[in-house]
Amino acid sequence: MSDRPQTPLLDQVHSPDDLKRYSDADLKRLADELRAETISAVSVTGGHLGAGLGVVELTVAIHAVFDTPRDKLIWDVGHQCYPHKILTGRRDRIRTLRTGGGLSGFTKRAESPYDPFGAAHSSTSISAGLGFAVGRDLGAKDVGDVIAVIGDGSITAGMAYEAMNNAGHLKNKLIVILNDNEMSIAPPVGAMSAYLSRLLSGKSYHDFREAAKKALELLPAPFREGARRMEEFAKGMTVGGTLFEELGFTYIGPIDGHDLDQVLPVLRNVRDYADGPVLIHAITKKGKGYAPAENAPDKGHARAKFDVVTGEQKKAPSNAPSYTKVFAQSLIKEAETDDRIVAITAAMPDGTGVDLFQKRFPARTFDVGIAEQHAVTFAAGLAASGMKPFCAIYSTFLQRGYDQVVHDVAIQGLPVRFPIDRAGLVGADGSTHAGSFDVTYLSCLPGFVVMAASDEAELVHMVATARDYDEGPIAFRFPRGEGVGVDMPERGVPLPIGKGRIVKQGGKIAILSLGTRLQEAMRAAEELDAHGLPTTVADARFAKPLDRDLILNLARNHEALITIEEGSVGGFGSHVLHLLANEGMLEHGLKVRPMVLPDVFLDQDSPAKMYETAGLCTPDIVRTALAALGHAETAARA
Amino acid sequence: MSDRPQTPLLDQVHSPDDLKRYSDADLKRLADELRAETISAVSVTGGHLGAGLGVVELTVAIHAVFDTPRDKLIWDVGHQCYPHKILTGRRDRIRTLRTGGGLSGFTKRAESPYDPFGAAHSSTSISAGLGFAVGRDLGAKDVGDVIAVIGDGSITAGMAYEAMNNAGHLKNKLIVILNDNEMSIAPPVGAMSAYLSRLLSGKSYHDFREAAKKALELLPAPFREGARRMEEFAKGMTVGGTLFEELGFTYIGPIDGHDLDQVLPVLRNVRDYADGPVLIHAITKKGKGYAPAENAPDKGHARAKFDVVTGEQKKAPSNAPSYTKVFAQSLIKEAETDDRIVAITAAMPDGTGVDLFQKRFPARTFDVGIAEQHAVTFAAGLAASGMKPFCAIYSTFLQRGYDQVVHDVAIQGLPVRFPIDRAGLVGADGSTHAGSFDVTYLSCLPGFVVMAASDEAELVHMVATARDYDEGPIAFRFPRGEGVGVDMPERGVPLPIGKGRIVKQGGKIAILSLGTRLQEAMRAAEELDAHGLPTTVADARFAKPLDRDLILNLARNHEALITIEEGSVGGFGSHVLHLLANEGMLEHGLKVRPMVLPDVFLDQDSPAKMYETAGLCTPDIVRTALAALGHAETAARA
Repeated sequence: MSDRPQTPLLDQVHSPDDLKRYSDADLKRLADELRAETISAVSVTGGHLGAGLGVVELTVAIHAVFDTPRDKLIWDVGHQCYPHKILTGRRDRIRTLRTGGGLSGFTKRAESPYDPFGAAHSSTSISAGLGFAVGRDLGAKDVGDVIAVIGDGSITAGMAYEAMNNAGHLKNKLIVILNDNEMSIAPPVGAMSAYLSRLLSGKSYHDFREAAKKALELLPAPFREGARRMEEFAKGMTVGGTLFEELGFTYIGPIDGHDLDQVLPVLRNVRDYADGPVLIHAITKKGKGYAPAENAPDKGHARAKFDVVTGEQKKAPSNAPSYTKVFAQSLIKEAETDDRIVAITAAMPDGTGVDLFQKRFPARTFDVGIAEQHAVTFAAGLAASGMKPFCAIYSTFLQRGYDQVVHDVAIQGLPVRFPIDRAGLVGADGSTHAGSFDVTYLSCLPGFVVMAASDEAELVHMVATARDYDEGPIAFRFPRGEGVGVDMPERGVPLPIGKGRIVKQGGKIAILSLGTRLQEAMRAAEELDAHGLPTTVADARFAKPLDRDLILNLARNHEALITIEEGSVGGFGSHVLHLLANEGMLEHGLKVRPMVLPDVFLDQDSPAKMYETAGLCTPDIVRTALAALGHAETAARA
Repeated sequence: MSDRPQTPLLDQVHSPDDLKRYSDADLKRLADELRAETISAVSVTGGHLGAGLGVVELTVAIHAVFDTPRDKLIWDVGHQCYPHKILTGRRDRIRTLRTGGGLSGFTKRAESPYDPFGAAHSSTSISAGLGFAVGRDLGAKDVGDVIAVIGDGSITAGMAYEAMNNAGHLKNKLIVILNDNEMSIAPPVGAMSAYLSRLLSGKSYHDFREAAKKALELLPAPFREGARRMEEFAKGMTVGGTLFEELGFTYIGPIDGHDLDQVLPVLRNVRDYADGPVLIHAITKKGKGYAPAENAPDKGHARAKFDVVTGEQKKAPSNAPSYTKVFAQSLIKEAETDDRIVAITAAMPDGTGVDLFQKRFPARTFDVGIAEQHAVTFAAGLAASGMKPFCAIYSTFLQRGYDQVVHDVAIQGLPVRFPIDRAGLVGADGSTHAGSFDVTYLSCLPGFVVMAASDEAELVHMVATARDYDEGPIAFRFPRGEGVGVDMPERGVPLPIGKGRIVKQGGKIAILSLGTRLQEAMRAAEELDAHGLPTTVADARFAKPLDRDLILNLARNHEALITIEEGSVGGFGSHVLHLLANEGMLEHGLKVRPMVLPDVFLDQDSPAKMYETAGLCTPDIVRTALAALGHAETAARA
C-alpha cells in the first residue's frame, strides 16, 4: 500500500536469524524501519503504541544478540511486543492486531514459539523466567539464556519483588532488563519509583567507587572492619543499584535503551560472562520517535485507530456515557455529602474512573501502584478505621487480591466496597482481561453482597447502595464500554439488599438475568411472546443474597426458568439452582436452564461477537427457552 | 491450680491501663511473669508457643507505652498474640485457646477491641496498619498511633513490600516493628533474609556515620555533589537500614527486643517524635526463656499439649498415616523414576510434606518463601520449560496465587500440578485456615482438572495421575489429618481422567461424594438400606471434568440424588446441577440435594465437630435423603 513506510532492511527479515547477518550499523537502520512499521500498523489496528516504540532498539538488540526461540525472551505484560511480533514471523498479520481471529495484543504461547510465556497481567516475567532458568539448569531441553523485560511500573509489584528475592537466592543465570521509561500506565507511584529516579540522578558518579575506597583508607583503624561493607555501598553509589544488589542481582546501568552502541555490547557481555541473576537498567522513552505519542500525557499508552500524521484518533462517537464514567460521577456525587468515602485504585486511575474522583477529592484518593494485594487490605484497614473505602479494581485484576478479599475483608465482615469494572467479556484485550469469574469467586464467600448492574442507571443506584451499606463487604460489577442509553436518575437511591425486580410480566417462561444481558433477555422475551409464549423477565440485581421470594415465585408460576449472566459456572445460576434444589422446587417439572459463559477461554473479538460466540445473546436465549419447552423444531428455526 | 506459676504483678493487670502504673523495673518483672503464664497456658492448650515467648517484652512495652485500644496494635499472622491476650482482659480464658468456643489462636476483631485487625495469614499487618493511619489522618475517630508487628519471615512477602512501598510514598505516621528472630515457620529463605542477616552483622558501626561524613570532605571536588547521597548511604551503613530507607521508612535498630531498657525508650521516642513511617528492627529469640522450645529445631513454633517441665508433647497416637505424609511418600516414589518432577513450597516445607521430598531430592525442591504469587508463576515457567512441577500450597494459601493460577497456568494450559493440602475444615486454626473455596475457584477455570481424594489410597493414585497428565493444569485436594486406615497400594496407578467410581450399588437413593465425606456417605447408605431404601454410593473423584455418564446414570436410575463435598457452594454440586439442568434431567421428578459447607465462616473446633456443625455428617445425609423422599417423620427421628 502507498502509505506504508519504506523498509528495505526489514523486508529481508523473516526470522530473528536474519538479524545475525547485519552489522551494528545496519541494526540501527533496521530499528528505524521497525519503528516506522510499528507506527503504521498501530494506526490501522489501534492498541498499545507507546510501549512498543519505547523498546524498538531493545527488541532488535535482544534478537540480534540472543538465540531466540531457544533463548527465552519474556516480555512483561506484553503490550510492548508489537515490534517483537514483526521480527518473529508475524509481520504479515501485524495489521490484524487485537481483532477477531488476528494477532493477540500480548504475547501468547499458542501464537508463536518466540512467545515462550504469555502475558497481559503485569509483573509475572521474572517468576516465569526463573522457572525457565531453573528448568534449564535441571536439564530441560532447548532452553538457553532467559531474558525477562519488565517495566518500571511492573517491577514495583509485590510479585516481581518475590521473584527477585527468590532469584537472588537461587543464583541461576537470569537476565532481567528493567525497561525504565518513568511511565507505567499511570504516572508511577510509590517509594520504589522514587528510588529509581534517584538511581538516574546518580549516573554521573562514575569513578566514585575508586574514590570511596581510597576515602576508606583514611578512616581511623576501628572502622576498617567496615571496609567490605563500605565497598559494597560505594559500588551501589557508583552504579546505582544497591537495592537490586541487596536482592542478589548484579546491577548494570543505567544505560540508554535507545542507543544500540550501549545496548549491544552490554547484552553481549552479559550473554558471555554473566553467571547469576543480572539486572540491566535501560532508560527508554515511551512513544519514542513518534511525536504525537511522545507528547501525549500517557505517552500514547493505548490508542484507538489514528491518522499516522496527526495522531488524531478515529474513535466511534457514542451517545451513552461509559459505565466507568457513570461510576465515577456517581461516586463523586455521593462523596460530596459523605466525607468518609475514599477511593482506591491499583495503578488504573483512568481505567477505573478514579482519576475523575481524584480531581475532585485528591486527598481522599489513593493510587497504590500495581499492588492489588495491598490495595484490598489497605481498604480493609480503612474500613476498620471507620472510613468507606471504594476499592476499584477490574474483575480480572481483583483475582490478584483474592486471598485478601477472603481473609482481610470477608472473614472480618468489613464494609469494603468493590466497584468491579470490566465484568464479563472485554473485547480486544481477550481472555486474559475477561472478567469471567468474580461472581463465582465472590458469591461463595459468607456475608458478601454481590450486585451486577443491568444498565447505567442501575449502576448509579448501586453506588448509592454501597455507600449506605455498612454491615459488611459489598461488590457491584459492570461491564466495559458504553451504557445502553437509558434515562439517568438525578441521584442514586439505595436498593433494598437482596431484592430483584420484575421488568416484564409474562406467564409461561421466566428469564432471570443478572447484569447487562438484561437487554438481550428483553429482546428474547419479545420474540417468545410472538411465539405465543408469554415471557417474564426479571433483573436479579443481586447474586448474593438471592431474592428467594422472587426466584421461588418465578419457579412456581412458570414452566421454564432461564438464568443468564456474564460469568462462569459456579456463580449466580449455581446459587439459584442450589436454592431451588434445597427448596424441593426442581422435582415438579420446572424446566430450568442456567446460561453461563462457556467452559473455554474466549479469544479477542468485539465484545458483541464474543457474546455471540459465548452463546449468551437473544437468539441463544430464545433457542434455549424453546428447546426447554420441547419446541425443538421451532428452536431449530430460531 | 498448684502447677500454675506465681504471678503477683500480672494478677493486678486487668487491662493495659494497669501497666501505666508500673515502673520500668516492675515491667521487667511483669514480663517474666507473663512468660511463665504463657508457657503454663500453652502446656494445657497446645498452640504456637515459640512466637509468643519471643515477643513477651515487646508486648509489655507496647501496651505500657501506647494507649491501646485507641492506639492500634496489629500483630502480623497473630500466632504470637497469646501474651497480648493475657494482658488485654482475656487471661481468664487463655486456657481455652484454639478449642471449640474458646479463644482464637490468632487475633480476632470479634473477640476484643484490643484486636483492631484480625489475622492468621501472613504479611497483612502493614497494609492494614496503613489503612488505619490514613483513616486517622482523614479524620477517623478513635484512632491514635498505629503499630504493626511483623516477623522477618512475613516481611519477605510481596504484599508486605507493596505496603511499605505505599507507606513510604504516603508518609503518614506508621510504626512497624520488625520482629526479627531469624526464624519464620521454616528456616528463612531468599535474598531479603540474607540482607537482614547482613544488617545484624553491622550493628557495631555506631559512629560510622560521622566518620563517613568526614571522609567525604576529603574527596576531590567533582565528587562533592554526591555528598547528600553519600550521607544517605553512610547513614544506611551506620544503622543498617538502607533498603528500608530507600522505601521511605526511618530505620531504627537493630535493638535487643528482650531488653526493656532498649525497647521502652525507643518506643517512647517514636511515639513522641516520629512523624512518618518508622521501622524499628528488634532482634528477638523465638521460644525465649523456655529451654525445651529454644532448643527445638523450629524453636517451638507450634506445639501439641506438653509437659511444662520436660517439654514432652502429649499427642494422640494414630494408626493411619497423615495425608500429608502419604502425598510426600508417593511423590518421592514417582520422582525416583521421573527426573522431571520438582516440588515447590511457599514457606511450608513441613506442613506440605515437601521437607521429606527435599531430603531425598534437594536439588529438585524449591522453597520460595512466603510468596504464593511467585510460587505459582515460577511453577508455570518450570512447566513451560518441560519440567513437572508439583506446587504444594494449602487450599487457603493458594488463594494468594489465584490470579497466577488463572493467568499464568490455566489460560496457557500449562501442566502445573497442584497438591492442595488442608482442603475442607481444619480444626483448631479455625475459619482463616479452612480450605473451603478451592473447588469453587478452580473448577470454574476452563481446562483445569480438579480431583479430591476420598481416602489415602486414592491420594496415592492421584499423585500418579498428576504425574502422567501433561495436557494442562491438574489439582488434587486432600484434608488435614490422618487417613482412614485403608490398605495402601504398593504404588499409584493413574486414574482415567474424568471418571468416578461406584463404591456401593443401591437403587432408590444415590449419594455422589467428592472427597473424604465418602466414609460418612457409606455409613449413611447403611442406615438408609436399613430403612428399606437401597442406596448407591459413588466417589466422584473428579470435580472437573465431570463423569457425565456416571452422573446421568445415577440421575436416571434413582429417585433421589445427593451430592456432598467438603467445600462451598459454586463447586462440585453446582457443576453437577448445571449438567443435570442442561441435559433436561431435572424435570422428571428427580429429587436432587446438593450438600455443601454452610454459608458462614465456621469457628475453630475439632474437625469432626466442625463437620457436625456444618451439617455434613452421616445423620445429616440420612436426614436429607429421607426428607427428599418425603419421609418427613422418619427424617425427624433420624
